[in-house]
Amino acid sequence: MTAYVLAVTVDAHDAQALATFWQAALDRDDPFTWDDKEGVHYVELRGEPTLVFQPVPDDKRVKNRLHLDLAPTDGTQEAEIERLVGLGARVVDTAEGFPWTVLVDPEGNEFCVLPPR
Amino acid sequence: MTAYVLAVTVDAHDAQALATFWQAALDRDDPFTWDDKEGVHYVELRGEPTLVFQPVPDDKRVKNRLHLDLAPTDGTQEAEIERLVGLGARVVDTAEGFPWTVLVDPEGNEFCVLPPR
Repeated sequence: MTAYVLAVTVDAHDAQALATFWQAALDRDDPFTWDDKEGVHYVELRGEPTLVFQPVPDDKRVKNRLHLDLAPTDGTQEAEIERLVGLGARVVDTAEGFPWTVLVDPEGNEFCVLPPR
Repeated sequence: MTAYVLAVTVDAHDAQALATFWQAALDRDDPFTWDDKEGVHYVELRGEPTLVFQPVPDDKRVKNRLHLDLAPTDGTQEAEIERLVGLGARVVDTAEGFPWTVLVDPEGNEFCVLPPR
């Protein structure tokens, strides 16, 4: 049982405008929405990016504006969260009423675990 | 001419430990380094994540601890930077002595443009 990175989520003031910039930057299809009420916009990437960890001296001070969204490859959301906590993650918000749970990695970087797709 | 997301880079106090957590979380191969002197560690992802833009009220206050690294699909680094600036990006640091250039998107999110791979 494991998880994969389903999405990289970016906080935005104007999500449509920012998605349109990145759509053009990456020459992808026009941003799409799954739920217009929430104003969330999606741009599909291509390729398999590498996660790069670079040493820096500065402390984390505020909630990250970019975060990873994980989905289980198999098994349940609950079992996957339990596995990640066993690796050193910590649950910080069960996001009641929403399908995801917010965790932080060992350096406090927020990420979400979603139900299996 | 366009660009693709080569990497998602994460600032870390202990890059090796953080990479090891994410390697285990995503069940990938052990983190690798290209240049041990810099202490940068890499974990290959699988799949093509989606970029998600979610509206938030909070302002961006500090440098993001996660950023996207782009590489040109074709053409030169300089031409790609010019194209991105034409779309609304801004160059903030030419990172003299390093191969990348730091830009910000229209909401001030830092990203790097690297030479073609």
